[in-house]
Amino acid sequence: MQFDHAGIATDDADQLADLYGTLFDAPVAHKEVMDDGLRVVFLDLGDGYFELLEPTDGGTVARYLDRNGPGIHHLAVATEDIEAALETARDAGVSLIDEQPRPGAWGHEVAFLHPKDTGGVLLEFVQH
Amino acid sequence: MQFDHAGIATDDADQLADLYGTLFDAPVAHKEVMDDGLRVVFLDLGDGYFELLEPTDGGTVARYLDRNGPGIHHLAVATEDIEAALETARDAGVSLIDEQPRPGAWGHEVAFLHPKDTGGVLLEFVQH
Repeated sequence: MQFDHAGIATDDADQLADLYGTLFDAPVAHKEVMDDGLRVVFLDLGDGYFELLEPTDGGTVARYLDRNGPGIHHLAVATEDIEAALETARDAGVSLIDEQPRPGAWGHEVAFLHPKDTGGVLLEFVQH
Repeated sequence: MQFDHAGIATDDADQLADLYGTLFDAPVAHKEVMDDGLRVVFLDLGDGYFELLEPTDGGTVARYLDRNGPGIHHLAVATEDIEAALETARDAGVSLIDEQPRPGAWGHEVAFLHPKDTGGVLLEFVQH
């Protein structure tokens, strides 16, 4: 598998995209408004992305911001077989937030693992 | 610039390396005991790394674990000119934790930016 992206929760994705664009010479690769009250901006960092997550209408990232403030939200790893990856996680005793893959940004299939079983890290499998 | 690694604070780097190795088919690429009371284990994720950070003798990561528990600690971006990258950050009004690059793991030069000016994210420049 390969690193895919780091998700960052923010109140202002465009402002952060401007700053990170300056700091890292990282262009905006993709913008999308998701169904679940989330606006995402992907910055291209060569071999991976930073995904800036801005809540537009409540939802889990809005609650994350309320609890923790802005910051790193999750890490995503790309797999060519997300069903097999989830089966491996189940076999390793890791609780799944998504028992089945669901549509994510860019039309990719995604599934999250529960941080309580992964060293406190919210991890995402993504299949392009 | 390119994504380099995500740093993850943990009480047990070897245990987490075993789990992530299973979940992501990610082999251990490097282990090192740093001068500042930190043991690091790098997992190879193709185009980037997860750096597992285990305190051995106090220090900033130990304090991070005391305050926040285990989880994602920082994101690192590779640059070919870390002095120029720090100058760009200064010009953008970002506070620097390291005004000058210092030796990091793998003998790389590293410098951290203050999360108060970067959307709550502890960011690291690294020059290989």
